[in-house]
Amino acid sequence: MKVAVLGFGVVGRGVFDMIEKAQGMEVGYVLVRPGKVDAEYKTDSLEKILSDSSVDAVAEVMGGIEPARSYAEKAINAGKHFVTSNKALVAAHGLELSALAREKGVAFLFSAACGGGVPFLHNLACAVKTDKVNSLGGILNGTTNYMLDAMQSKGWSYEEALKDAQMLGYAEADPTADVTGLDALRKIMLACAVGFDVLPNEGLLNEGIDSLTAEDVEDFKKRGLTCRLLAKGERRERGVSAYVEPWLLESSAPECAVLKNYNMAKYEGECSGPMVFMGQGAGRYPTASAVLRDLSYIVSGEYYMLSDKAAAGAADNSACFHNYYVRLPKAFADEFKCADKQEDGADVRLITEKLSVSEMHAVAKKIRAEGAKVFFAGLEMEK
Amino acid sequence: MKVAVLGFGVVGRGVFDMIEKAQGMEVGYVLVRPGKVDAEYKTDSLEKILSDSSVDAVAEVMGGIEPARSYAEKAINAGKHFVTSNKALVAAHGLELSALAREKGVAFLFSAACGGGVPFLHNLACAVKTDKVNSLGGILNGTTNYMLDAMQSKGWSYEEALKDAQMLGYAEADPTADVTGLDALRKIMLACAVGFDVLPNEGLLNEGIDSLTAEDVEDFKKRGLTCRLLAKGERRERGVSAYVEPWLLESSAPECAVLKNYNMAKYEGECSGPMVFMGQGAGRYPTASAVLRDLSYIVSGEYYMLSDKAAAGAADNSACFHNYYVRLPKAFADEFKCADKQEDGADVRLITEKLSVSEMHAVAKKIRAEGAKVFFAGLEMEK
Repeated sequence: MKVAVLGFGVVGRGVFDMIEKAQGMEVGYVLVRPGKVDAEYKTDSLEKILSDSSVDAVAEVMGGIEPARSYAEKAINAGKHFVTSNKALVAAHGLELSALAREKGVAFLFSAACGGGVPFLHNLACAVKTDKVNSLGGILNGTTNYMLDAMQSKGWSYEEALKDAQMLGYAEADPTADVTGLDALRKIMLACAVGFDVLPNEGLLNEGIDSLTAEDVEDFKKRGLTCRLLAKGERRERGVSAYVEPWLLESSAPECAVLKNYNMAKYEGECSGPMVFMGQGAGRYPTASAVLRDLSYIVSGEYYMLSDKAAAGAADNSACFHNYYVRLPKAFADEFKCADKQEDGADVRLITEKLSVSEMHAVAKKIRAEGAKVFFAGLEMEK
Repeated sequence: MKVAVLGFGVVGRGVFDMIEKAQGMEVGYVLVRPGKVDAEYKTDSLEKILSDSSVDAVAEVMGGIEPARSYAEKAINAGKHFVTSNKALVAAHGLELSALAREKGVAFLFSAACGGGVPFLHNLACAVKTDKVNSLGGILNGTTNYMLDAMQSKGWSYEEALKDAQMLGYAEADPTADVTGLDALRKIMLACAVGFDVLPNEGLLNEGIDSLTAEDVEDFKKRGLTCRLLAKGERRERGVSAYVEPWLLESSAPECAVLKNYNMAKYEGECSGPMVFMGQGAGRYPTASAVLRDLSYIVSGEYYMLSDKAAAGAADNSACFHNYYVRLPKAFADEFKCADKQEDGADVRLITEKLSVSEMHAVAKKIRAEGAKVFFAGLEMEK
């Protein structure tokens, strides 16, 4: 199988190295920016790649929506299998690209776009062929998990944890997508599309960790709780729910054993029961290994993760109820029915009665609009 | 795809139910014992099944080596895809059956034989196509994990834990294969065959949990340690190592979050890093879900877990060194170089200096031959 790699950044170099070592695979071309063509296998011309009939597959690892989307369309139209690590691309255009790939009889796979090196989407796609999956999700963002682990184990502030994550290359210069939960949200969109045949692109809710302080973490520890950023998707009576929230867990929960920048993805099948997948969620070779597995699935004849029934839909989070831990100024404490309330200076730390995810996010938005600082995290009171 | 199910016990009924519900699959026949043919789809004639050209695949869930082996051979020779949950069969005859299946152009898959519902072997087989796996293993026996968890969390004796496991159907009337580590050993043999192309059938070592007492568990707790039965396989300079031992882990280790009868299997790829898979290791529908996934892999065109290079070999555990926790009568304490030693009545509890797995097992065997009771478990002193 001859593969053209689009992009030569962190992941692209890893994909290049792994293809060179893999049996039965070779790199045809690497697409780089004009002016960066410094080796025979590099080119800045997509047309050159697509017009070469010896190229079987294109692996896109550039990131971003354009030009990735138009490159994908061109590659598929040219009869090339298409593999990508690009979650923004698949969240926005995966349905149409997968449908086009089916029409052209070529593959459209995106393992690396959800869970990095963790083979989650592939296993989910296998599972739904013979089992019914009703819920899925987990720790899908390595950057924030690294930060949460550091804040918990080292007592660091949010700013210190972010700076360290950036120094180690886990967080980008602009960490917004990671710390607000948007990155995890895109991944849960893809997982819902594979697991439920619904790619939710409306009604999604994401709360990240950007409101978290060292004092909050100190308080979690006193309560014997550990914070993780969880993405959750569920099949509902009508449609699906899909959201991202910080979550407080008892230390014995498997999620708390997920340290550093690791990911842990999970689905629950009616027959299989819960199935959990843990590994590195990012990084050159872990992510590249997911791209390489996609290429080998193509060799085995597995071309799609999205079924031909997958369609866009709206998420509805109004029927998901759980308790919340909330830290906010005393003046706003009456916004919630509380199971527990502890004053902390000018703030109050509450455990709410159960309320819906959509209500919680709406109340937090309203309070923040008045200039107040709020942190909230889901938790399950019963065991 | 029309499937014949061989066996109608716990797993067989699960496979039957799942095939009936799966799209594009149907049950052709169920093979039962003579005198048990009480429905039209049941038969006691393998010949009837194999001579029916509409049967595409045979799923064997009877267990035991004969007649499973000869049925497998006949089914493959008759051109039927063959899927099995039978670890004893694959450990003893998997290589020859897989080779025969390749010759006949039919599938030979055995997901359910290692990890129950956990999709470990399939992912391992996918990984080795493009990555190099150097170590693998984990918690591969749900019965002993259930017992260890109960002894740890409820303070039960070994006998109480075993009785409870039997009552819940997790342990068989004769629990020997589970509690001595033999069941986990068979599973690590299969994992080595898939991950390293070596099915070790000599030089294997297994220590189970049948020497463990409630007092031992009490002592682990004091030390902040939790016991798990781990199977380990490693690629060595020459050949492989493969053994099963109880292991003492710090409570923050992911293995300690594996509760009840769950399994946790793991491989470490040079590119992917550690990949962990957790789920139900036994039970009707979890195990059946693994059989069904195998059937759907066949539909996708994935026919084999064992490569055509897989061959039998001897395990060598003499180059695997780690520390051990050992409880034995004082009189035998000098058998070990100790990093720590605590007297406990007529016994002594040691932490040894590092020694090889083969040496530890040999010394324990020698001491036991003198009628003394010994418990030992691996541990890593450095962190």
